[in-house]
Amino acid sequence: MTAPERRYVITFGCPDRTGIIARISGFLAEHGGWIVEAAYHTDPDTGWFFTRQVVRADSLPFDAAELRARFGEVAADLSAESSWQVSDTGERRRAVVLVSKAGHCLYDLLGRVASGELDVDIAAVIGNHESLADITRAHGIPFHHVPFPTGGKEAAFEEVRKLVDEHDPHAVVLARFMQILPADLCRDWAGRAINIHHSFLPSFIGAKPYHQAHTRGVKLVGATCHYVTADLDAGPIIDQDVIRVDHGDSVEDMVRKGRDIEKVTLARGLRWHLENRVLVHGNRTVVF
Amino acid sequence: MTAPERRYVITFGCPDRTGIIARISGFLAEHGGWIVEAAYHTDPDTGWFFTRQVVRADSLPFDAAELRARFGEVAADLSAESSWQVSDTGERRRAVVLVSKAGHCLYDLLGRVASGELDVDIAAVIGNHESLADITRAHGIPFHHVPFPTGGKEAAFEEVRKLVDEHDPHAVVLARFMQILPADLCRDWAGRAINIHHSFLPSFIGAKPYHQAHTRGVKLVGATCHYVTADLDAGPIIDQDVIRVDHGDSVEDMVRKGRDIEKVTLARGLRWHLENRVLVHGNRTVVF
Amino acid sequence: MTAPERRYVITFGCPDRTGIIARISGFLAEHGGWIVEAAYHTDPDTGWFFTRQVVRADSLPFDAAELRARFGEVAADLSAESSWQVSDTGERRRAVVLVSKAGHCLYDLLGRVASGELDVDIAAVIGNHESLADITRAHGIPFHHVPFPTGGKEAAFEEVRKLVDEHDPHAVVLARFMQILPADLCRDWAGRAINIHHSFLPSFIGAKPYHQAHTRGVKLVGATCHYVTADLDAGPIIDQDVIRVDHGDSVEDMVRKGRDIEKVTLARGLRWHLENRVLVHGNRTVVF
Amino acid sequence: MTAPERRYVITFGCPDRTGIIARISGFLAEHGGWIVEAAYHTDPDTGWFFTRQVVRADSLPFDAAELRARFGEVAADLSAESSWQVSDTGERRRAVVLVSKAGHCLYDLLGRVASGELDVDIAAVIGNHESLADITRAHGIPFHHVPFPTGGKEAAFEEVRKLVDEHDPHAVVLARFMQILPADLCRDWAGRAINIHHSFLPSFIGAKPYHQAHTRGVKLVGATCHYVTADLDAGPIIDQDVIRVDHGDSVEDMVRKGRDIEKVTLARGLRWHLENRVLVHGNRTVVF
Repeated sequence: MTAPERRYVITFGCPDRTGIIARISGFLAEHGGWIVEAAYHTDPDTGWFFTRQVVRADSLPFDAAELRARFGEVAADLSAESSWQVSDTGERRRAVVLVSKAGHCLYDLLGRVASGELDVDIAAVIGNHESLADITRAHGIPFHHVPFPTGGKEAAFEEVRKLVDEHDPHAVVLARFMQILPADLCRDWAGRAINIHHSFLPSFIGAKPYHQAHTRGVKLVGATCHYVTADLDAGPIIDQDVIRVDHGDSVEDMVRKGRDIEKVTLARGLRWHLENRVLVHGNRTVVF
Repeated sequence: MTAPERRYVITFGCPDRTGIIARISGFLAEHGGWIVEAAYHTDPDTGWFFTRQVVRADSLPFDAAELRARFGEVAADLSAESSWQVSDTGERRRAVVLVSKAGHCLYDLLGRVASGELDVDIAAVIGNHESLADITRAHGIPFHHVPFPTGGKEAAFEEVRKLVDEHDPHAVVLARFMQILPADLCRDWAGRAINIHHSFLPSFIGAKPYHQAHTRGVKLVGATCHYVTADLDAGPIIDQDVIRVDHGDSVEDMVRKGRDIEKVTLARGLRWHLENRVLVHGNRTVVF
Repeated sequence: MTAPERRYVITFGCPDRTGIIARISGFLAEHGGWIVEAAYHTDPDTGWFFTRQVVRADSLPFDAAELRARFGEVAADLSAESSWQVSDTGERRRAVVLVSKAGHCLYDLLGRVASGELDVDIAAVIGNHESLADITRAHGIPFHHVPFPTGGKEAAFEEVRKLVDEHDPHAVVLARFMQILPADLCRDWAGRAINIHHSFLPSFIGAKPYHQAHTRGVKLVGATCHYVTADLDAGPIIDQDVIRVDHGDSVEDMVRKGRDIEKVTLARGLRWHLENRVLVHGNRTVVF
Repeated sequence: MTAPERRYVITFGCPDRTGIIARISGFLAEHGGWIVEAAYHTDPDTGWFFTRQVVRADSLPFDAAELRARFGEVAADLSAESSWQVSDTGERRRAVVLVSKAGHCLYDLLGRVASGELDVDIAAVIGNHESLADITRAHGIPFHHVPFPTGGKEAAFEEVRKLVDEHDPHAVVLARFMQILPADLCRDWAGRAINIHHSFLPSFIGAKPYHQAHTRGVKLVGATCHYVTADLDAGPIIDQDVIRVDHGDSVEDMVRKGRDIEKVTLARGLRWHLENRVLVHGNRTVVF
């Protein structure tokens, strides 16, 4: 695989009105911007307009900082306020992964990164148990063990915050982390903290969703990748998937089958997030 | 298509122990019974054993009534009590369908019956509106209009009960009926009243599930076919399915996409029920 | 349901270059055009650009004919040649359906039209057998029986052509028609004749695909909705779907399960076609 | 997780007739055998009967060897000839994995084994390139590099054979191995060599299936797990799956999306094989 050419990705939201697309594409065309991907969405309920535009970096006569400065005027004209962003694919993405004992999501992410499929640097893995230290280090990635003793969770989370923030990551991935983030971390990592919940939300919020699913006798189990908010398992959903189960499946079988969709759904949601494809709108997402 | 050969279907449940399969299959073999389909399940949580056996009628030297009498002794030996049944595919299945205004499930069922795919007599369709009368009658099926005025629901349900019970149907199908069955009908039609709910239960119980789904921002919408119990949308699930939606889908789009899985899931659940493939076990089902 | 507001739908393709979006959206903005839906695609292999734009009719100061005239200049500037179209949702869509004996797709289409889900007038149904005449007429739609005797197929197809062409339909739907269209009809109905093939193409081209699938022992069976071309089952694919089967499924079971996806895939492909969402590009489609 | 209790798994096929189930279950019951799982299938086309029975080892008064000897008499009575097997879950399963450069399937298998999900010893990994040596060894598994130079393939395959056969593995897994097994290895490893092909067979046999899929413009791409036979990509299919693609997906996107189903489909097929759930019947499989 050759490296993909450098691109600037504009994501943008503003109140809908006539002429937005003309304004944005006119601005880009004026400077020779070659659009290689463009997507639009209007939410009729809220009257809000969204777009994501991908421009070849070499087609513009200026760099990302200058694009940001100039596009800022367009955004101001369209009352976008802070709902826009210009990102540069030339800037390498960084993620920190939080884990507990269950390794399937971490193994999967490491494999995707190692095989070049997921284009991100995993700056660190932090675990409240040590069981995943060896595999992490075998991939050349630092592993930090932060125990979460009863009565010591607050201090533990401060330690986690410090370890995460020193990398200023584009994504904080809760890969079956099993600890509930305190409200201040939810706030400070808003739009960057991504969780995989092992149920088809809003079914089976909270603990032991596969047990809940087995008791209810459902015929499909699911997984949900979502942004973390202070409201448990209720943040904006990025992606979901399901897999068929039947009466012959024990809770353990459901856990095993569910893992396959947890892994895929988390990896897909993380990829979209890192490619700036996910725009949060209230408690919902637009995924371009 | 030639008519399928006549068969007896034994469904059976009892406390698990050694030798059950040997006892049942020994009984059948002794009389020359040719088993064309056999399925087993043991529930390790409850220690209960289930089976469904399909025997060619012409391989046995007696009729269904005699099979029932003789098999009753086997069932008694195995402490099955009332948890068993012998049904005869030579006896034509009957269903009554309850509808409101939304026609997609009824159209679908009528089409399946007319094209010979679903092997059942629809004895009558009962609607609380008249909008589906014409299409029902075009298929040569009686349509009864039973209005549900405010304050008159109790009487209306008595009328529905009368109209249903005169056919002694194998299935009472709530094809988007939109009225909540009173507890006495739930009880009297237990194991025969089948509902299609337009969500992936237990998500979005009750009214307007697609609106609830849209508000929550889910990425899949679902449908659930289940037996009706007095506990709203909480009866044993027969089948479920989902379909992908995205941010571009309005509530109306979700409704439209959801219909396709409602139709298929209801038809599949009803078929399984009519073929005696569904065994209820507590609030869960075994589907052979 | 209230009628959706009137809209103009522009579909457009041209060689890719800088400024296309700006040109088109600039043109629309200049006249106050309110874009309610917009989609773009660039094919890197062929260097071709595609877009579909939906504009509120009441936002423009002129009608569809005038829009067509004025947009023609934009199209010419961008070297689109004949690869563009302006359609008006105020003009009702018409379809003619060709059938044989199998009714499941026809029943499904009739039900969708009757329940208001599929917004099209079925002008006529033409069958080479009479078995589906009654249900068609029960829906108030003319049914024409055109027998296809050995040695008389050419004349029969001329009759079919005459019956179809008098309605000048937006779509000619081969709903399990089972006769191979002659080359001249494929040419004259190019981009309008839509077939549902009962396999996941390119697997199992031609006759008896479910038998072929059963013999090969596949674990999924499929359906393919595609435009008809002179090359059998090889036209541009609009949509495909699959359903799981297993060793217990006979050919007849596969046929039955497959019908559910044939119906849905055909209805979905037809809807997209009627909404001008499908742009043909060589032997592939862009589906916006 | 506690170790699952030891079990004997009987797989069995014979010409169908009355009394087979009674004979087998009678034999087991006679010795106190506690059946925890049982499945049956009759193929009406070939008149062949299949079963898989799982018995708790501690419920029988003898060991696997004795069970094999005694059950042999039952099998002989029923004319099963060599179509039966008794396996012992107490005997650990061994697999050898063959790879090339693409690592996604190997990473996935290693992760599943390491996390305890897939209960098998990977005795060795053999690669015709060295790129996957490090990750293999990081999991404590020997990696053998066997180059396949032009003109030296025959010798290379002899080396592979030697390296594989010394472990007498239950499964030889071609995890995107990319070399076509010679006929003699197909024969000697019949029923044990498992391949993952990156298409929905029989579509796109042979090289570069994603390129073929892209050219044809399909709307789903697939993966097929099958036993290897001398006939390329035509062996008995164990499992298949698909994932949706659209016009926006390049060949590289299809490759990436396809990997997710390749991994899952291979892992599922391998699990079923190792649990003796897959019975080959002609060129098809029965998967219990």
